[in-house]
Amino acid sequence: MNGYFITFEGGEGAGKSSILQAVARKLSEGGYDVLATREPGGIDIAEKIRQVILDKTHTAMDARTEALLYAAARRQHLAEKIIPALNEGKLVLCDRFIDSSLVYQGYARGIGMDEVFAINQFAIRDVFPDMTLFFDIPPTKGLARITANENRERNRLDMENIRFHEMVYEAYQMLLSQFPKRIQTIDADQPFEQVKANVMKVLQSGLQKHVEEEKQ
Amino acid sequence: MNGYFITFEGGEGAGKSSILQAVARKLSEGGYDVLATREPGGIDIAEKIRQVILDKTHTAMDARTEALLYAAARRQHLAEKIIPALNEGKLVLCDRFIDSSLVYQGYARGIGMDEVFAINQFAIRDVFPDMTLFFDIPPTKGLARITANENRERNRLDMENIRFHEMVYEAYQMLLSQFPKRIQTIDADQPFEQVKANVMKVLQSGLQKHVEEEKQ
Repeated sequence: MNGYFITFEGGEGAGKSSILQAVARKLSEGGYDVLATREPGGIDIAEKIRQVILDKTHTAMDARTEALLYAAARRQHLAEKIIPALNEGKLVLCDRFIDSSLVYQGYARGIGMDEVFAINQFAIRDVFPDMTLFFDIPPTKGLARITANENRERNRLDMENIRFHEMVYEAYQMLLSQFPKRIQTIDADQPFEQVKANVMKVLQSGLQKHVEEEKQ
Repeated sequence: MNGYFITFEGGEGAGKSSILQAVARKLSEGGYDVLATREPGGIDIAEKIRQVILDKTHTAMDARTEALLYAAARRQHLAEKIIPALNEGKLVLCDRFIDSSLVYQGYARGIGMDEVFAINQFAIRDVFPDMTLFFDIPPTKGLARITANENRERNRLDMENIRFHEMVYEAYQMLLSQFPKRIQTIDADQPFEQVKANVMKVLQSGLQKHVEEEKQ
């Protein structure tokens, strides 16, 4: 497996999804073979699992059932899409991955980060991201961005109360101290072009190191 | 939680499902408040998860995805049906539970019993069966029973090759040595009425001990 696997993480309204699309285009133009994806990623089985999670009639869904379903969708997306791309030497950019589960289900929903890590470890095995970008913006500012954007459809998570989003932010801070080598912080409280330029700089430095390591 | 939780386990054609229904009736007539169930057990979310697992178009399903989906369906069935019943003091009889996952996914499909145990531990937490009955019949005999029964629709597992069923049997033997106190062996290679009588004897002895423990 000679590819390179980068995940994009952060709270709501941090802008990571738009930045991911923009840098994926730029990297492709620069000659990289890029796969930009997010779960369930058009993978039939993963899409069906996601439908079960998001079905609004499923009000009785237990938090642990939900966490297991996210891990199942992750596994299938990984098996059918990410692993084959990495085996072909691609640069894979994925919008949210294991850290989102640790933060949302493990911490904010109160299951426990270690326990949610255990089931995700089962799901991903040794396919850990080579690099993770954390899009750092204060939760109130991120939420204000979403509210201002009339074109964006509000989902269930956007409507959670502010305390929930603060817990998400706290949990990302914990992961930053736990994985200081893997996770890089991106200041997301800046204009789009500035954030994009910073992300490109961090990615190119990471990719250069990867190429040098592969040569050895 | 003052209920009592009994699971029925064994390979294909061991007759455990028919025996479960028969003893559930007998125990009800004897004054016990009984819940006889099996996953997904009519629980909407668990049924939808099971549909994803059994969908014949899902030929690309990864073994780990499948194991996570079984654990998710188990969790929801437990949360919505088994735990409430145990809290009401019921006697719960469940056709297949955690041991089936250890045996089928963990051993026969080759994921590893310890790893499958980890995700099931996440799913069931402390709701371990008080007693498990293992219906013991040589795999070739169990399969012959299924083939002889024209009324029974063959499922995907019935059609697996004999080596698979032998591995299932081997794995149950391992669990028997690992959990000698919890798992009781029932000789299932006998006429129906004889097996039923033996099961009733083992259950009544277990229930008597449970009642005495509750009194203390």
